Amino acid sequence: MATLHEVTDPDDPRLADYRDLRDVQLRKSLEAAHGLFLAEGEKVVRRAVEAGHRPRSFLMAPRWLEGLSDVLERTEAPCYVVSESMAEAVTGFHVHRGALASLHRAPLPGLDEVLEGARSILVLEDVVDHTNVGAVFRSAAALGFDAVLLSPRCADPLYRRAVKVAMGSVFHVPWTRLPDWYDALTDLSRRGFTSVALTLAPDATDIADAVRGVDRLALVLGSEGPGISRRWQESADRRAIIPMSAGVDSLNVAAACAVACYVAARR
Amino acid sequence: MATLHEVTDPDDPRLADYRDLRDVQLRKSLEAAHGLFLAEGEKVVRRAVEAGHRPRSFLMAPRWLEGLSDVLERTEAPCYVVSESMAEAVTGFHVHRGALASLHRAPLPGLDEVLEGARSILVLEDVVDHTNVGAVFRSAAALGFDAVLLSPRCADPLYRRAVKVAMGSVFHVPWTRLPDWYDALTDLSRRGFTSVALTLAPDATDIADAVRGVDRLALVLGSEGPGISRRWQESADRRAIIPMSAGVDSLNVAAACAVACYVAARR
Repeated sequence: MATLHEVTDPDDPRLADYRDLRDVQLRKSLEAAHGLFLAEGEKVVRRAVEAGHRPRSFLMAPRWLEGLSDVLERTEAPCYVVSESMAEAVTGFHVHRGALASLHRAPLPGLDEVLEGARSILVLEDVVDHTNVGAVFRSAAALGFDAVLLSPRCADPLYRRAVKVAMGSVFHVPWTRLPDWYDALTDLSRRGFTSVALTLAPDATDIADAVRGVDRLALVLGSEGPGISRRWQESADRRAIIPMSAGVDSLNVAAACAVACYVAARR
Repeated sequence: MATLHEVTDPDDPRLADYRDLRDVQLRKSLEAAHGLFLAEGEKVVRRAVEAGHRPRSFLMAPRWLEGLSDVLERTEAPCYVVSESMAEAVTGFHVHRGALASLHRAPLPGLDEVLEGARSILVLEDVVDHTNVGAVFRSAAALGFDAVLLSPRCADPLYRRAVKVAMGSVFHVPWTRLPDWYDALTDLSRRGFTSVALTLAPDATDIADAVRGVDRLALVLGSEGPGISRRWQESADRRAIIPMSAGVDSLNVAAACAVACYVAARR
Protein backbone atom coordinates (compact mmCIF):
# COMPACT_ATOMS: atom_id res chain seq x y z
CA MET A 1 0.00 0.00 0.00
CA ALA A 2 1.35 3.43 -0.96
CA THR A 3 2.05 5.71 1.98
CA LEU A 4 0.28 9.06 1.86
CA HIS A 5 2.28 12.20 2.62
CA GLU A 6 0.56 15.53 2.83
CA VAL A 7 2.89 18.16 1.35
CA THR A 8 2.33 21.89 1.83
CA ASP A 9 5.65 23.37 0.73
CA PRO A 10 5.86 23.68 -3.08
CA ASP A 11 9.67 23.66 -2.81
CA ASP A 12 9.69 20.30 -1.02
CA PRO A 13 12.50 18.31 -2.69
CA ARG A 14 10.38 15.17 -2.76
CA LEU A 15 8.34 16.80 -5.53
CA ALA A 16 11.35 17.20 -7.84
CA ASP A 17 10.00 14.71 -10.41
CA TYR A 18 6.97 16.94 -11.03
CA ARG A 19 8.60 20.34 -11.57
CA ASP A 20 8.05 22.58 -14.58
CA LEU A 21 6.24 20.06 -16.74
CA ARG A 22 5.81 22.59 -19.53
CA ASP A 23 9.53 23.13 -19.99
CA VAL A 24 10.31 20.56 -22.69
CA GLN A 25 14.11 20.91 -22.64
CA LEU A 26 14.36 20.74 -18.87
CA ARG A 27 12.00 17.77 -18.69
CA LYS A 28 13.85 15.86 -21.39
CA SER A 29 17.15 16.07 -19.55
CA LEU A 30 15.59 15.43 -16.12
CA GLU A 31 13.68 12.38 -17.34
CA ALA A 32 16.68 10.95 -19.17
CA ALA A 33 19.00 11.52 -16.20
CA HIS A 34 16.69 9.71 -13.78
CA GLY A 35 15.18 7.12 -16.13
CA LEU A 36 11.69 8.28 -15.29
CA PHE A 37 8.59 9.44 -17.10
CA LEU A 38 5.33 11.07 -16.07
CA ALA A 39 1.81 9.73 -16.48
CA GLU A 40 -1.17 12.05 -16.18
CA GLY A 41 -4.77 11.20 -15.41
CA GLU A 42 -6.35 8.25 -13.69
CA LYS A 43 -6.70 6.09 -16.80
CA VAL A 44 -3.18 6.68 -18.10
CA VAL A 45 -1.59 6.19 -14.67
CA ARG A 46 -3.39 2.85 -14.31
CA ARG A 47 -2.35 1.71 -17.79
CA ALA A 48 1.28 2.65 -17.18
CA VAL A 49 1.40 0.64 -13.96
CA GLU A 50 -0.42 -2.31 -15.52
CA ALA A 51 2.08 -2.28 -18.39
CA GLY A 52 4.82 -3.01 -15.88
CA HIS A 53 6.33 0.41 -15.18
CA ARG A 54 7.19 0.62 -11.49
CA PRO A 55 5.97 3.82 -9.77
CA ARG A 56 8.54 6.12 -8.13
CA SER A 57 5.80 8.26 -6.58
CA PHE A 58 2.37 9.78 -7.11
CA LEU A 59 1.19 13.39 -6.81
CA MET A 60 -2.48 14.18 -6.53
CA ALA A 61 -5.18 16.26 -4.93
CA PRO A 62 -7.27 14.46 -2.27
CA ARG A 63 -10.30 14.01 -4.52
CA TRP A 64 -8.34 11.77 -6.92
CA LEU A 65 -7.24 9.29 -4.26
CA GLU A 66 -10.35 7.19 -4.40
CA GLY A 67 -10.34 6.64 -8.16
CA LEU A 68 -6.79 5.31 -8.00
CA SER A 69 -7.15 3.36 -4.75
CA ASP A 70 -6.72 0.02 -6.57
CA VAL A 71 -3.39 1.20 -8.01
CA LEU A 72 -2.20 2.71 -4.73
CA GLU A 73 -3.00 -0.52 -2.89
CA ARG A 74 -0.59 -2.50 -5.00
CA THR A 75 2.52 -0.34 -4.60
CA GLU A 76 4.96 0.76 -1.92
CA ALA A 77 5.72 4.09 -3.62
CA PRO A 78 4.90 7.31 -1.75
CA CYS A 79 1.84 9.32 -2.74
CA TYR A 80 2.19 13.08 -2.19
CA VAL A 81 -1.16 14.66 -1.48
CA VAL A 82 -1.35 18.36 -2.33
CA SER A 83 -3.97 21.02 -2.98
CA GLU A 84 -4.92 21.64 -6.61
CA SER A 85 -3.37 25.10 -6.53
CA MET A 86 -0.15 23.64 -5.23
CA ALA A 87 -0.13 20.98 -7.95
CA GLU A 88 -0.39 23.85 -10.40
CA ALA A 89 2.42 25.80 -8.70
CA VAL A 90 4.77 22.81 -8.86
CA THR A 91 4.02 21.57 -12.37
CA GLY A 92 3.44 24.94 -14.01
CA PHE A 93 0.02 24.15 -15.41
CA HIS A 94 -3.51 23.37 -14.36
CA VAL A 95 -3.63 19.62 -13.75
CA HIS A 96 -7.00 18.92 -15.39
CA ARG A 97 -6.94 15.22 -14.80
CA GLY A 98 -5.83 15.47 -11.22
CA ALA A 99 -3.51 12.55 -10.75
CA LEU A 100 0.15 12.39 -11.73
CA ALA A 101 2.58 9.54 -11.35
CA SER A 102 6.33 9.39 -11.83
CA LEU A 103 7.39 5.97 -13.06
CA HIS A 104 10.61 4.10 -13.69
CA ARG A 105 11.15 3.38 -17.35
CA ALA A 106 11.11 -0.36 -17.89
CA PRO A 107 14.07 -1.49 -20.04
CA LEU A 108 13.15 -1.45 -23.74
CA PRO A 109 12.49 -4.91 -25.17
CA GLY A 110 14.77 -6.27 -27.86
CA LEU A 111 13.80 -6.37 -31.52
CA ASP A 112 13.22 -10.12 -31.47
CA GLU A 113 10.71 -9.80 -28.68
CA VAL A 114 8.82 -6.91 -30.29
CA LEU A 115 8.65 -8.60 -33.70
CA GLU A 116 7.59 -12.03 -32.38
CA GLY A 117 4.41 -12.94 -34.24
CA ALA A 118 3.98 -9.41 -35.66
CA ARG A 119 2.44 -9.19 -39.12
CA SER A 120 2.08 -5.41 -39.50
CA ILE A 121 4.57 -2.98 -38.02
CA LEU A 122 5.27 0.73 -38.27
CA VAL A 123 8.81 2.07 -38.52
CA LEU A 124 9.37 5.77 -37.78
CA GLU A 125 12.48 7.63 -38.90
CA ASP A 126 13.25 10.80 -36.94
CA VAL A 127 9.67 11.83 -36.18
CA VAL A 128 10.62 14.55 -33.71
CA ASP A 129 7.29 15.98 -32.61
CA HIS A 130 5.76 14.39 -29.50
CA THR A 131 2.23 15.02 -30.75
CA ASN A 132 2.96 13.17 -33.98
CA VAL A 133 4.59 10.22 -32.20
CA GLY A 134 1.57 9.97 -29.88
CA ALA A 135 -0.87 10.17 -32.80
CA VAL A 136 1.01 7.43 -34.65
CA PHE A 137 0.69 5.09 -31.65
CA ARG A 138 -3.02 5.82 -31.33
CA SER A 139 -3.62 5.07 -35.02
CA ALA A 140 -1.44 1.94 -34.85
CA ALA A 141 -3.53 0.63 -31.95
CA ALA A 142 -6.86 1.52 -33.55
CA LEU A 143 -6.02 0.16 -36.98
CA GLY A 144 -4.54 -3.15 -35.93
CA PHE A 145 -0.78 -2.68 -36.17
CA ASP A 146 1.26 -5.03 -34.00
CA ALA A 147 4.36 -2.99 -33.14
CA VAL A 148 6.20 0.30 -33.62
CA LEU A 149 9.95 0.66 -34.19
CA LEU A 150 11.65 4.03 -33.70
CA SER A 151 14.87 5.32 -35.19
CA PRO A 152 17.34 6.62 -32.61
CA ARG A 153 16.35 10.27 -33.16
CA CYS A 154 12.57 9.89 -32.88
CA ALA A 155 10.84 11.78 -30.09
CA ASP A 156 10.19 9.88 -26.86
CA PRO A 157 6.83 8.04 -26.78
CA LEU A 158 6.87 8.24 -22.98
CA TYR A 159 7.08 12.02 -22.92
CA ARG A 160 3.94 13.37 -21.24
CA ARG A 161 2.51 15.02 -24.38
CA ALA A 162 3.04 11.87 -26.47
CA VAL A 163 1.43 9.63 -23.84
CA LYS A 164 -1.57 11.96 -23.67
CA VAL A 165 -2.12 12.19 -27.44
CA ALA A 166 -1.68 8.40 -27.71
CA MET A 167 -4.44 7.95 -25.10
CA GLY A 168 -2.12 5.56 -23.32
CA SER A 169 -1.66 3.25 -26.31
CA VAL A 170 2.14 3.55 -25.89
CA PHE A 171 1.58 1.15 -23.00
CA HIS A 172 -0.05 -1.65 -24.96
CA VAL A 173 1.41 -1.43 -28.47
CA PRO A 174 4.82 -3.16 -28.27
CA TRP A 175 7.64 -0.82 -29.32
CA THR A 176 11.37 -0.33 -29.12
CA ARG A 177 14.25 1.75 -30.51
CA LEU A 178 16.13 0.41 -33.51
CA PRO A 179 19.66 -0.43 -32.40
CA ASP A 180 21.12 0.48 -35.79
CA TRP A 181 19.84 3.19 -38.09
CA TYR A 182 21.90 2.43 -41.16
CA ASP A 183 20.90 -1.20 -41.69
CA ALA A 184 17.50 -1.07 -40.02
CA LEU A 185 15.45 -1.78 -43.15
CA THR A 186 17.76 -4.39 -44.64
CA ASP A 187 17.66 -6.15 -41.28
CA LEU A 188 13.85 -6.13 -41.37
CA SER A 189 13.95 -7.62 -44.89
CA ARG A 190 16.20 -10.39 -43.62
CA ARG A 191 13.64 -11.06 -40.92
CA GLY A 192 10.97 -11.62 -43.57
CA PHE A 193 9.31 -8.18 -43.63
CA THR A 194 8.58 -6.26 -46.82
CA SER A 195 9.39 -2.63 -46.07
CA VAL A 196 7.19 -0.04 -47.79
CA ALA A 197 8.45 3.55 -47.40
CA LEU A 198 6.01 6.46 -47.75
CA THR A 199 7.79 9.02 -49.90
CA LEU A 200 7.29 11.57 -52.64
CA ALA A 201 10.03 9.91 -54.73
CA PRO A 202 9.23 9.79 -58.46
CA ASP A 203 9.17 5.98 -58.55
CA ALA A 204 6.70 5.71 -55.66
CA THR A 205 3.63 3.64 -56.44
CA ASP A 206 0.11 3.99 -55.05
CA ILE A 207 0.13 2.76 -51.45
CA ALA A 208 -2.82 0.46 -52.13
CA ASP A 209 -0.83 -1.32 -54.85
CA ALA A 210 2.39 -1.34 -52.86
CA VAL A 211 0.95 -3.23 -49.88
CA ARG A 212 -1.39 -5.57 -51.74
CA GLY A 213 -0.78 -9.19 -50.85
CA VAL A 214 2.20 -8.43 -48.60
CA ASP A 215 2.43 -10.87 -45.69
CA ARG A 216 4.73 -9.33 -43.07
CA LEU A 217 4.60 -5.59 -43.67
CA ALA A 218 6.89 -2.85 -42.31
CA LEU A 219 5.32 0.50 -43.14
CA VAL A 220 7.98 3.22 -42.97
CA LEU A 221 7.24 6.90 -42.21
CA GLY A 222 9.74 9.74 -42.27
CA SER A 223 10.46 12.96 -40.46
CA GLU A 224 8.05 15.93 -40.43
CA GLY A 225 10.23 18.13 -42.61
CA PRO A 226 12.52 16.23 -44.96
CA GLY A 227 10.68 12.90 -44.97
CA ILE A 228 12.60 9.62 -45.23
CA SER A 229 16.39 9.77 -45.59
CA ARG A 230 18.02 8.73 -48.83
CA ARG A 231 19.55 5.67 -47.12
CA TRP A 232 16.16 4.41 -46.00
CA GLN A 233 14.50 5.23 -49.32
CA GLU A 234 17.14 3.18 -51.07
CA SER A 235 17.12 0.30 -48.62
CA ALA A 236 13.31 -0.02 -48.48
CA ASP A 237 11.85 -2.85 -50.53
CA ARG A 238 9.16 -0.58 -51.99
CA ARG A 239 8.43 3.15 -52.19
CA ALA A 240 4.79 4.22 -52.00
CA ILE A 241 2.71 7.38 -52.07
CA ILE A 242 -0.76 8.34 -50.94
CA PRO A 243 -2.29 9.90 -54.06
CA MET A 244 -2.89 13.62 -53.48
CA SER A 245 -4.50 16.58 -55.17
CA ALA A 246 -2.51 18.61 -57.64
CA GLY A 247 -0.57 21.41 -55.98
CA VAL A 248 -0.61 19.92 -52.48
CA ASP A 249 2.49 17.91 -51.82
CA SER A 250 2.00 16.31 -48.47
CA LEU A 251 -0.13 15.21 -45.60
CA ASN A 252 0.93 15.65 -42.00
CA VAL A 253 2.87 12.54 -40.89
CA ALA A 254 0.11 11.54 -38.43
CA ALA A 255 -2.56 11.86 -41.13
CA ALA A 256 -0.42 9.93 -43.63
CA CYS A 257 0.12 7.24 -41.02
CA ALA A 258 -3.61 6.87 -40.37
CA VAL A 259 -4.39 6.54 -44.08
CA ALA A 260 -1.53 4.11 -44.72
CA CYS A 261 -2.48 1.93 -41.73
CA TYR A 262 -6.10 1.88 -42.91
CA VAL A 263 -5.07 0.82 -46.41
CA ALA A 264 -2.54 -1.71 -45.13
CA ALA A 265 -5.06 -3.29 -42.77
CA ARG A 266 -7.12 -4.15 -45.89
CA ARG A 267 -4.23 -5.53 -47.98
CA MET B 1 4.87 50.07 -51.35
CA ALA B 2 4.93 49.33 -47.60
CA THR B 3 6.74 51.94 -45.54
CA LEU B 4 9.57 50.58 -43.38
CA HIS B 5 9.80 51.72 -39.77
CA GLU B 6 12.70 50.68 -37.62
CA VAL B 7 11.42 50.07 -34.10
CA THR B 8 13.77 49.73 -31.12
CA ASP B 9 11.39 50.03 -28.18
CA PRO B 10 9.64 46.72 -27.43
CA ASP B 11 6.83 48.66 -25.74
CA ASP B 12 6.10 50.69 -28.87
CA PRO B 13 2.28 50.75 -29.14
CA ARG B 14 2.47 50.16 -32.90
CA LEU B 15 3.50 46.58 -32.13
CA ALA B 16 0.32 45.83 -30.16
CA ASP B 17 -0.92 43.29 -32.73
CA TYR B 18 2.10 41.08 -32.09
CA ARG B 19 2.13 40.86 -28.32
CA ASP B 20 2.19 37.65 -26.31
CA LEU B 21 1.48 35.28 -29.15
CA ARG B 22 1.69 32.27 -26.85
CA ASP B 23 -1.14 33.46 -24.62
CA VAL B 24 -4.12 31.76 -26.28
CA GLN B 25 -6.86 33.44 -24.22
CA LEU B 26 -5.41 36.91 -24.61
CA ARG B 27 -4.84 36.42 -28.34
CA LYS B 28 -8.35 35.13 -28.91
CA SER B 29 -9.95 38.20 -27.37
CA LEU B 30 -7.49 40.62 -28.99
CA GLU B 31 -7.94 39.11 -32.43
CA ALA B 32 -11.73 39.02 -32.15
CA ALA B 33 -11.90 42.60 -30.87
CA HIS B 34 -9.84 43.96 -33.75
CA GLY B 35 -10.91 41.57 -36.52
CA LEU B 36 -7.33 40.59 -37.18
CA PHE B 37 -5.26 37.46 -37.42
CA LEU B 38 -1.55 36.68 -37.56
CA ALA B 39 0.37 34.94 -40.33
CA GLU B 40 3.84 33.55 -39.68
CA GLY B 41 6.57 32.77 -42.16
CA GLU B 42 7.23 33.97 -45.68
CA LYS B 43 5.11 31.35 -47.44
CA VAL B 44 2.09 31.69 -45.16
CA VAL B 45 2.20 35.51 -45.20
CA ARG B 46 2.24 35.48 -49.00
CA ARG B 47 -0.65 33.00 -49.20
CA ALA B 48 -2.73 35.04 -46.76
CA VAL B 49 -2.27 38.22 -48.79
CA GLU B 50 -2.90 36.44 -52.09
CA ALA B 51 -6.10 34.98 -50.62
CA GLY B 52 -7.40 38.55 -50.25
CA HIS B 53 -6.69 39.34 -46.61
CA ARG B 54 -5.60 42.99 -46.38
CA PRO B 55 -2.44 43.53 -44.26
CA ARG B 56 -2.64 45.82 -41.22
CA SER B 57 1.14 45.69 -40.74
CA PHE B 58 4.22 43.49 -40.92
CA LEU B 59 6.88 42.72 -38.31
CA MET B 60 10.19 41.23 -39.32
CA ALA B 61 13.94 41.17 -38.89
CA PRO B 62 15.94 42.86 -41.68
CA ARG B 63 17.02 39.58 -43.27
CA TRP B 64 13.43 38.63 -44.10
CA LEU B 65 12.66 41.82 -46.05
CA GLU B 66 14.03 40.60 -49.35
CA GLY B 67 12.09 37.33 -49.45
CA LEU B 68 8.81 39.22 -49.01
CA SER B 69 9.70 42.21 -51.20
CA ASP B 70 7.03 41.27 -53.78
CA VAL B 71 4.36 41.28 -51.07
CA LEU B 72 5.61 44.51 -49.49
CA GLU B 73 5.60 46.24 -52.88
CA ARG B 74 1.91 45.72 -53.32
CA THR B 75 0.67 47.15 -50.03
CA GLU B 76 0.52 50.46 -48.20
CA ALA B 77 0.66 48.84 -44.75
CA PRO B 78 3.58 49.69 -42.45
CA CYS B 79 6.40 47.20 -41.99
CA TYR B 80 8.08 47.31 -38.56
CA VAL B 81 11.69 46.24 -38.76
CA VAL B 82 13.11 44.89 -35.53
CA SER B 83 16.01 42.78 -34.31
CA GLU B 84 15.39 39.07 -33.85
CA SER B 85 15.79 39.33 -30.09
CA MET B 86 13.25 42.14 -30.02
CA ALA B 87 10.81 40.09 -32.12
CA GLU B 88 11.18 37.42 -29.46
CA ALA B 89 10.67 39.90 -26.62
CA VAL B 90 7.45 41.23 -28.16
CA THR B 91 5.87 37.96 -29.26
CA GLY B 92 7.08 35.80 -26.39
CA PHE B 93 8.70 33.13 -28.53
CA HIS B 94 11.53 32.59 -30.96
CA VAL B 95 10.20 33.58 -34.37
CA HIS B 96 11.75 30.74 -36.38
CA ARG B 97 10.32 31.78 -39.68
CA GLY B 98 11.21 35.42 -39.30
CA ALA B 99 8.32 37.26 -40.85
CA LEU B 100 5.00 38.04 -39.20
CA ALA B 101 2.01 39.85 -40.63
CA SER B 102 -1.14 41.11 -38.99
CA LEU B 103 -4.06 40.96 -41.40
CA HIS B 104 -7.66 42.08 -41.52
CA ARG B 105 -10.05 39.18 -41.55
CA ALA B 106 -11.95 39.21 -44.83
CA PRO B 107 -15.71 38.77 -44.25
CA LEU B 108 -16.67 35.08 -44.30
CA PRO B 109 -18.36 34.01 -47.53
CA GLY B 110 -21.97 32.84 -47.46
CA LEU B 111 -22.93 29.17 -47.64
CA ASP B 112 -24.15 29.49 -51.24
CA GLU B 113 -20.78 30.77 -52.36
CA VAL B 114 -18.77 28.11 -50.52
CA LEU B 115 -20.96 25.25 -51.77
CA GLU B 116 -21.10 26.42 -55.41
CA GLY B 117 -19.87 23.49 -57.50
CA ALA B 118 -18.63 21.55 -54.44
CA ARG B 119 -18.93 17.77 -54.61
CA SER B 120 -17.14 16.75 -51.40
CA ILE B 121 -17.29 18.83 -48.25
CA LEU B 122 -16.29 18.42 -44.63
CA VAL B 123 -18.53 19.58 -41.80
CA LEU B 124 -16.98 19.97 -38.35
CA GLU B 125 -19.04 20.11 -35.18
CA ASP B 126 -17.31 21.76 -32.20
CA VAL B 127 -13.76 20.70 -32.99
CA VAL B 128 -12.15 22.94 -30.40
CA ASP B 129 -8.43 22.23 -30.76
CA HIS B 130 -6.54 24.53 -33.15
CA THR B 131 -4.11 21.75 -34.10
CA ASN B 132 -6.97 19.48 -35.09
CA VAL B 133 -8.73 22.18 -37.12
CA GLY B 134 -5.47 22.93 -38.93
CA ALA B 135 -4.83 19.23 -39.61
CA VAL B 136 -8.35 18.81 -41.00
CA PHE B 137 -7.79 21.63 -43.49
CA ARG B 138 -4.46 20.16 -44.58
CA SER B 139 -6.02 16.73 -45.17
CA ALA B 140 -9.01 18.28 -46.95
CA ALA B 141 -6.67 20.10 -49.34
CA ALA B 142 -4.43 17.08 -49.94
CA LEU B 143 -7.25 14.59 -50.42
CA GLY B 144 -9.41 16.65 -52.76
CA PHE B 145 -12.19 18.05 -50.60
CA ASP B 146 -13.82 21.21 -51.95
CA ALA B 147 -14.90 23.07 -48.82
CA VAL B 148 -15.07 23.00 -45.03
CA LEU B 149 -18.05 24.12 -42.93
CA LEU B 150 -17.62 24.85 -39.24
CA SER B 151 -20.21 24.78 -36.48
CA PRO B 152 -20.34 27.99 -34.45
CA ARG B 153 -18.22 26.57 -31.61
CA CYS B 154 -15.34 25.20 -33.70
CA ALA B 155 -11.87 26.63 -33.09
CA ASP B 156 -10.75 29.45 -35.37
CA PRO B 157 -8.96 28.26 -38.54
CA LEU B 158 -7.16 31.63 -38.71
CA TYR B 159 -5.61 31.28 -35.28
CA ARG B 160 -1.80 31.16 -35.70
CA ARG B 161 -1.41 27.54 -34.59
CA ALA B 162 -4.19 26.34 -36.92
CA VAL B 163 -2.75 28.25 -39.89
CA LYS B 164 0.68 26.74 -39.22
CA VAL B 165 -0.52 23.14 -38.90
CA ALA B 166 -2.68 23.61 -42.02
CA MET B 167 0.43 24.73 -43.92
CA GLY B 168 -1.59 27.70 -45.15
CA SER B 169 -4.36 25.56 -46.71
CA VAL B 170 -6.94 27.58 -44.73
CA PHE B 171 -6.28 30.23 -47.40
CA HIS B 172 -7.18 28.14 -50.42
CA VAL B 173 -9.79 25.67 -49.23
CA PRO B 174 -13.10 27.60 -49.19
CA TRP B 175 -14.70 27.61 -45.76
CA THR B 176 -17.27 29.38 -43.64
CA ARG B 177 -19.16 29.15 -40.36
CA LEU B 178 -22.58 27.51 -40.40
CA PRO B 179 -25.16 30.17 -39.62
CA ASP B 180 -27.43 27.71 -37.84
CA TRP B 181 -26.28 24.73 -35.82
CA TYR B 182 -29.65 23.05 -35.25
CA ASP B 183 -30.74 22.65 -38.86
CA ALA B 184 -27.29 22.57 -40.46
CA LEU B 185 -27.46 18.99 -41.74
CA THR B 186 -31.09 19.07 -42.85
CA ASP B 187 -30.26 22.24 -44.77
CA LEU B 188 -27.37 20.45 -46.49
CA SER B 189 -29.70 17.59 -47.43
CA ARG B 190 -32.11 20.10 -48.98
CA ARG B 191 -29.19 21.43 -51.00
CA GLY B 192 -28.58 17.97 -52.45
CA PHE B 193 -25.82 16.71 -50.17
CA THR B 194 -25.85 13.30 -48.51
CA SER B 195 -24.52 13.81 -45.01
CA VAL B 196 -22.46 10.96 -43.54
CA ALA B 197 -21.67 11.36 -39.85
CA LEU B 198 -18.65 9.57 -38.36
CA THR B 199 -19.84 8.11 -35.08
CA LEU B 200 -19.58 5.11 -32.78
CA ALA B 201 -23.39 4.73 -32.80
CA PRO B 202 -24.54 1.10 -32.93
CA ASP B 203 -26.24 1.52 -36.32
CA ALA B 204 -23.14 3.01 -37.97
CA THR B 205 -22.06 1.22 -41.13
CA ASP B 206 -18.56 0.82 -42.55
CA ILE B 207 -17.46 4.20 -43.96
CA ALA B 208 -16.52 2.59 -47.29
CA ASP B 209 -20.11 1.32 -47.70
CA ALA B 210 -21.67 4.53 -46.42
CA VAL B 211 -20.05 6.78 -49.03
CA ARG B 212 -20.14 4.40 -51.99
CA GLY B 213 -21.79 5.98 -55.01
CA VAL B 214 -22.74 9.18 -53.19
CA ASP B 215 -22.68 12.19 -55.50
CA ARG B 216 -22.57 15.31 -53.34
CA LEU B 217 -21.07 14.22 -50.01
CA ALA B 218 -20.99 16.05 -46.69
CA LEU B 219 -18.66 14.17 -44.36
CA VAL B 220 -19.42 15.13 -40.75
CA LEU B 221 -16.87 14.95 -37.91
CA GLY B 222 -17.54 15.64 -34.25
CA SER B 223 -15.81 17.13 -31.25
CA GLU B 224 -12.63 15.65 -29.74
CA GLY B 225 -14.30 14.43 -26.58
CA PRO B 226 -17.98 13.63 -26.98
CA GLY B 227 -18.08 13.24 -30.78
CA ILE B 228 -21.12 14.30 -32.78
CA SER B 229 -24.14 15.66 -30.88
CA ARG B 230 -27.35 13.67 -30.74
CA ARG B 231 -29.09 16.28 -32.91
CA TRP B 232 -26.53 15.93 -35.68
CA GLN B 233 -26.42 12.14 -35.39
CA GLU B 234 -30.20 12.07 -35.84
CA SER B 235 -30.33 14.62 -38.64
CA ALA B 236 -27.47 13.09 -40.67
CA ASP B 237 -28.56 11.00 -43.64
CA ARG B 238 -26.16 8.19 -42.71
CA ARG B 239 -24.01 7.18 -39.76
CA ALA B 240 -20.65 5.58 -40.50
CA ILE B 241 -17.67 4.15 -38.63
CA ILE B 242 -14.05 3.47 -39.48
CA PRO B 243 -13.62 -0.19 -38.50
CA MET B 244 -11.22 -0.45 -35.56
CA SER B 245 -9.42 -3.08 -33.51
CA ALA B 246 -11.19 -4.65 -30.57
CA GLY B 247 -10.67 -2.69 -27.37
CA VAL B 248 -9.69 0.58 -29.03
CA ASP B 249 -12.64 2.83 -29.42
CA SER B 250 -11.47 5.78 -31.41
CA LEU B 251 -9.03 7.54 -33.63
CA ASN B 252 -7.99 11.14 -33.08
CA VAL B 253 -10.36 13.41 -35.05
CA ALA B 254 -7.57 14.49 -37.43
CA ALA B 255 -6.59 10.87 -38.13
CA ALA B 256 -10.24 9.87 -38.61
CA CYS B 257 -10.67 12.80 -40.97
CA ALA B 258 -7.68 11.75 -43.09
CA VAL B 259 -8.92 8.17 -43.37
CA ALA B 260 -12.48 9.22 -44.16
CA CYS B 261 -11.35 11.74 -46.80
CA TYR B 262 -9.14 9.09 -48.39
CA VAL B 263 -12.00 6.60 -48.53
CA ALA B 264 -14.50 9.21 -49.73
CA ALA B 265 -12.17 10.39 -52.49
CA ARG B 266 -12.41 6.84 -53.91
CA ARG B 267 -16.18 6.44 -53.59
